[in-house]
Amino acid sequence: MFRPEIKVLDCTIRDGGLANDSHFSLETVRAVYKACCEAHIDYVELGYRNSKEMFSPDKFGPWRFCDEKDLRAATDGIENDGTKIAIMMDAHKADAADLLPKSESVADMVRVATYVKDIDKAVALENAAHEKGYETTINVMSISIESDWELDPALEQIEKETHIAACYVVDSFGALYSEQVDYFVAKFQRLLKHKEVGVHMHNNQQLAFANTIEGIIHGANFLDGTIYGLGRASGNCPLELLLGFLKNPKFNIRPVLDCAAQAIRPLQKEIEWGYMVPYMITGILNQHPRAAMAMLKADARDDYRAFYDKMLELVE
Amino acid sequence: MFRPEIKVLDCTIRDGGLANDSHFSLETVRAVYKACCEAHIDYVELGYRNSKEMFSPDKFGPWRFCDEKDLRAATDGIENDGTKIAIMMDAHKADAADLLPKSESVADMVRVATYVKDIDKAVALENAAHEKGYETTINVMSISIESDWELDPALEQIEKETHIAACYVVDSFGALYSEQVDYFVAKFQRLLKHKEVGVHMHNNQQLAFANTIEGIIHGANFLDGTIYGLGRASGNCPLELLLGFLKNPKFNIRPVLDCAAQAIRPLQKEIEWGYMVPYMITGILNQHPRAAMAMLKADARDDYRAFYDKMLELVE
Repeated sequence: MFRPEIKVLDCTIRDGGLANDSHFSLETVRAVYKACCEAHIDYVELGYRNSKEMFSPDKFGPWRFCDEKDLRAATDGIENDGTKIAIMMDAHKADAADLLPKSESVADMVRVATYVKDIDKAVALENAAHEKGYETTINVMSISIESDWELDPALEQIEKETHIAACYVVDSFGALYSEQVDYFVAKFQRLLKHKEVGVHMHNNQQLAFANTIEGIIHGANFLDGTIYGLGRASGNCPLELLLGFLKNPKFNIRPVLDCAAQAIRPLQKEIEWGYMVPYMITGILNQHPRAAMAMLKADARDDYRAFYDKMLELVE
Repeated sequence: MFRPEIKVLDCTIRDGGLANDSHFSLETVRAVYKACCEAHIDYVELGYRNSKEMFSPDKFGPWRFCDEKDLRAATDGIENDGTKIAIMMDAHKADAADLLPKSESVADMVRVATYVKDIDKAVALENAAHEKGYETTINVMSISIESDWELDPALEQIEKETHIAACYVVDSFGALYSEQVDYFVAKFQRLLKHKEVGVHMHNNQQLAFANTIEGIIHGANFLDGTIYGLGRASGNCPLELLLGFLKNPKFNIRPVLDCAAQAIRPLQKEIEWGYMVPYMITGILNQHPRAAMAMLKADARDDYRAFYDKMLELVE
């Protein structure tokens, strides 16, 4: 028996862009968009609309900016039976002036990613996006290192001052266990009485899918996944696993399987993601995966013990 | 705060042997044994003691039989501060006559793996092993396809007629979600009032570690893991993740990290395990992974859609 309120969002290109500076070919982006449309995914997030003042277009690919012409190139001519298009804006690295009025854009939803410390920027950006006609969400990143005395008032502010459809628990470090997922989902529900709760989980401890299920059990209705789990570090909740779990007959897993085989798995030649011990170590120690990403590019990428001891020094 | 009753069992060589017909080098087995001893793992399972009448020694390696001389070769000269040695016997493919009296063996524990239909064989084998002086367990395989009306009386028989330390919920197909783990752990606890419950989880849906945690939360005290998740199909609960979660200070994760880097990860050249879409498909459809293993050896190993549709035919 399925819960019709549940909305699934694919963020393959957006989150995957953290692993390759958003340098996807147009062909790959079109393949993901087409698969999501055919699978009847509720939302597909095609990248960030971040500021070119903060990210150099010389270094970052087009999906860090999602210029309207690029969004159109990615979507034109592909049949869409209701899948909405999302873009993400970082509260501290985006400019509301880069948002066209919704009536001039193919995007439907703006998701504002924020740290708790940037909550005022996030609220202002959400307000602007709402004003321009977009659906909105706020995604609270790095939730595993936020303190309740800062997080709780931020959530109260979001409840009062925004028009979001959902507020997301984002486990950027892949550090949460099921009990912490319960804790945060319950807190969000308590403080955000008029908003849905979303979950965006990372796989550093192989818990992204399990924690997404845990969120569902406790009432989260906005769920993020990526095809074949593509994403930074160990990646995300695999969309195909999520569709296998959800019972809503509107979803069709087959186009996602095709896309995994034909468009995403071949990217393994260029992007390394999935279970790796260094990411497991940053996960269990509740650390950003950046140290593990650097370690995996170094010569001693197999010296897990030394890396563990080095990371322990940071937390002890 | 840790639960001192929890026992961790490493079955890297035993379960991994299902992926390579138990053909591990002596060097690999010694590396795993040494890592488990240094990490203070409670039990290390070095293979099966199955019958040479049922498995040809021409085809299967020494760790399918665990002859006493091979067990000694794997363990001699390695310091052991209390890690016990386990061997597994398949109820329907092993002979109690192959068990020496415990006083003549380096093995401490015999784990009897069984399907519910073979419960009488399992009980007889357990009784013989107990009689010869071994600690014992019974591991109920393929639990996700057993019917309550067969499983419940089998558990009642195990409660009455055996001397096991623990009875395991074995998710051979990697098909269980957390709610089913709760269901089976609760059932085992209800019908096996004088035994501990164990969990042995497979990773076909990336849920092996999460389901092991779920078992812990609901009271399971015997936990299986393998180093770097080595095992048939998508493999098992990674031991290093489990140690990261458990808070018992007696465990030392470092030797396991070393072994993962030096002895297990290099096996990827010969053995393919980990997350793969065909195993995900057999997992979500509650099927044995053998069809996926065959598919992955065939030419069309990337045609996930065709495999999904073929598997659907088996269940619809």
